[in-house]
Amino acid sequence: MIDFLQSRRRFLALAAPLTGLVSCKKTVPSEIGAPLSAYGARSPQVTSVRDVRESATPGTGSTRTPLQDLDGIITPSALHFERHHAGVPSIDAAKHEILLHGLVEKPLIFTMADLHRFPSVSRIHFIECAGNSGAEQAGNPQPDPQKSAGLFSCSEWTGVPLSLLLKEAVLRPEAKWIVAEGADACMMARSIPIEKALDDILVAYSQNGEPLRPEQGFPVRLVVPGWEGNINVKWLHRLHVVDQPSMTRDETSHYTDLMPDGKAQIFTFPMEAKSIITRPAGRQKLAYGPGSYEITGLAWSGRGKVQRVEVSTDRGQTWQDAELQAPVLSKAATRFRLMWTWNGTPAALQSRCTDETGYVQPSLDDLVRVRGRFFQYHCNAIKTWFVHEDGSVSHV
Amino acid sequence: MIDFLQSRRRFLALAAPLTGLVSCKKTVPSEIGAPLSAYGARSPQVTSVRDVRESATPGTGSTRTPLQDLDGIITPSALHFERHHAGVPSIDAAKHEILLHGLVEKPLIFTMADLHRFPSVSRIHFIECAGNSGAEQAGNPQPDPQKSAGLFSCSEWTGVPLSLLLKEAVLRPEAKWIVAEGADACMMARSIPIEKALDDILVAYSQNGEPLRPEQGFPVRLVVPGWEGNINVKWLHRLHVVDQPSMTRDETSHYTDLMPDGKAQIFTFPMEAKSIITRPAGRQKLAYGPGSYEITGLAWSGRGKVQRVEVSTDRGQTWQDAELQAPVLSKAATRFRLMWTWNGTPAALQSRCTDETGYVQPSLDDLVRVRGRFFQYHCNAIKTWFVHEDGSVSHV
Repeated sequence: MIDFLQSRRRFLALAAPLTGLVSCKKTVPSEIGAPLSAYGARSPQVTSVRDVRESATPGTGSTRTPLQDLDGIITPSALHFERHHAGVPSIDAAKHEILLHGLVEKPLIFTMADLHRFPSVSRIHFIECAGNSGAEQAGNPQPDPQKSAGLFSCSEWTGVPLSLLLKEAVLRPEAKWIVAEGADACMMARSIPIEKALDDILVAYSQNGEPLRPEQGFPVRLVVPGWEGNINVKWLHRLHVVDQPSMTRDETSHYTDLMPDGKAQIFTFPMEAKSIITRPAGRQKLAYGPGSYEITGLAWSGRGKVQRVEVSTDRGQTWQDAELQAPVLSKAATRFRLMWTWNGTPAALQSRCTDETGYVQPSLDDLVRVRGRFFQYHCNAIKTWFVHEDGSVSHV
Repeated sequence: MIDFLQSRRRFLALAAPLTGLVSCKKTVPSEIGAPLSAYGARSPQVTSVRDVRESATPGTGSTRTPLQDLDGIITPSALHFERHHAGVPSIDAAKHEILLHGLVEKPLIFTMADLHRFPSVSRIHFIECAGNSGAEQAGNPQPDPQKSAGLFSCSEWTGVPLSLLLKEAVLRPEAKWIVAEGADACMMARSIPIEKALDDILVAYSQNGEPLRPEQGFPVRLVVPGWEGNINVKWLHRLHVVDQPSMTRDETSHYTDLMPDGKAQIFTFPMEAKSIITRPAGRQKLAYGPGSYEITGLAWSGRGKVQRVEVSTDRGQTWQDAELQAPVLSKAATRFRLMWTWNGTPAALQSRCTDETGYVQPSLDDLVRVRGRFFQYHCNAIKTWFVHEDGSVSHV
């Protein structure tokens, strides 16, 4: 509340002074309202949806989270972004099994009931598609937060630490990687270093309190905290312990980063520190003319906690520290806020995240200078929103 | 993971050793799955719902959260408990107004757009109906967690601190209470001490990232952290600043606590420290015979953070500390867990919460000894689940 107290006088003209009481009474109905319901639904007045991007290839594509419409850090499960490589399989949870085999002393098959017998853990983590904001990196700035960075969502996940399953199976000394494979039609698969598998990966069966949604991997997926979304394998049905990466399709033809010299980086797992202002942002308007506005958005880092978010209204010439909403959690979305007085002249809004490792989110120019325009993945550049004299906000 | 490492050998028989690889392959479909969707829905295999309790009086009643089916601490909005006194009103958010008047220098009317211009805050808080577990107190133990304590849910709420609106209106020195009134047909109203109003109350417009659900007060409600649910006035349309409580219907004929001497306590706001084991619990079964089971549940306190949760398997003769899932947040649900080896004999499971004030959740006997059986509200007694030799769990 420090922000408010420091700028209290700015708000004095915010709400209309009271001139009569009549106008408020009309909102009270005289009839009993709608009945109780076993499972709730949102108001018909709330129409925010995911941005659906079909592909020419059947079953592939993505939907993007409407970041500009969200508050707090939890993404409602119905609005969590999607990315599929062969559509959403229909899996019978009662019959589903996970095979754990390869370089282990005791190969095992786990049913969902087996998984539920293990000690569980719940953690709030973001998942971000490696391709998020790829268009920005390619020189094609996107017009709103959803289109620019909506392949990002954050949920409370519950499941079993993968390390427990591995200890149950007893790893052999030569075990160095694990290939996780999904039960979708393409058997989407990724190789994961054993160190990460023994660290903080969850074999997750629950999202935001309830079982995973079908498009999020029902009945079970990997949650690989802080690492690119693609490796958070959904509809998990196989864990193959091996001594080297398997060079699957999705870690060779996709999800590699093409450098300017023509070579590609591979196994670039962590999503680096990033942030985006979600309000005011492109396709919105400062509707009240010059005066006070809250600048808010989301910041995150695949390396740990967000330590600091700075906001600039002059395209990076000067910066102010934004307030971070507690709790600030590791590898989770962090909500930031800053009160700003718009003086009615053009402005350029930016946010810059620093994580607990000291890493600072780069400018787009700096990123492109090193990576070129064909890097495609892992774009974590600072995003700029331009405020025009009429109060409209756009991406150019 | 300490629990697991200490009891690792118990799990050796958990999952079936692998005898062949064939069984796992049958789960992979050969066809492209379901398409992308703009707004997701849960799997048809997930059928957990609120327990609907209609009343003989139209528009009143409640639904209870299926605590036994939930993981983590976030309640999905669709499963958040309901309690209505005149049904769910249909309110046009674009026309809705909140009147703030009475002992203020500057009476104000706020539209929803006005509220959104104020600095916002997001916090995870539980809401618990004062009548939750009332049947337990009355000597009628309930058969499962949902029926016993399902008038309890926890969400991430976003809104404006009420203190900011009050500062905007400028309180007069004689302002001591605020009457908050809802825009439902009964104009449900409660009196709130000004100290609480200036402390941590939110005028909330968002739940778990998206606008409030209709049954949770769309478009705006009070969130009064830690205090009885009824005072978290939904469909908020009026804040009347006064010098004494208004003695509304819901703080005189209801939501008062009848003591054994025939006198009633009034304005007993905070929900005291409480916990309940949600698995294993009534109507469930220890399906694998003697062996390892995770005991898990939820604990909370309206006075602040949960400091400790102890679990007993012998009806309170001996206690063990459960593990608390981080982050432990003030006036929020806290998930606790303890691994337990069931030896196959009858057992009686209890959990006991201690909050950061040092207050310890009482036994039902102790509570009834002081309060009698007609107290009705604020039951925070320890709940017992009885494990029988066949592994079934019941409330008696």
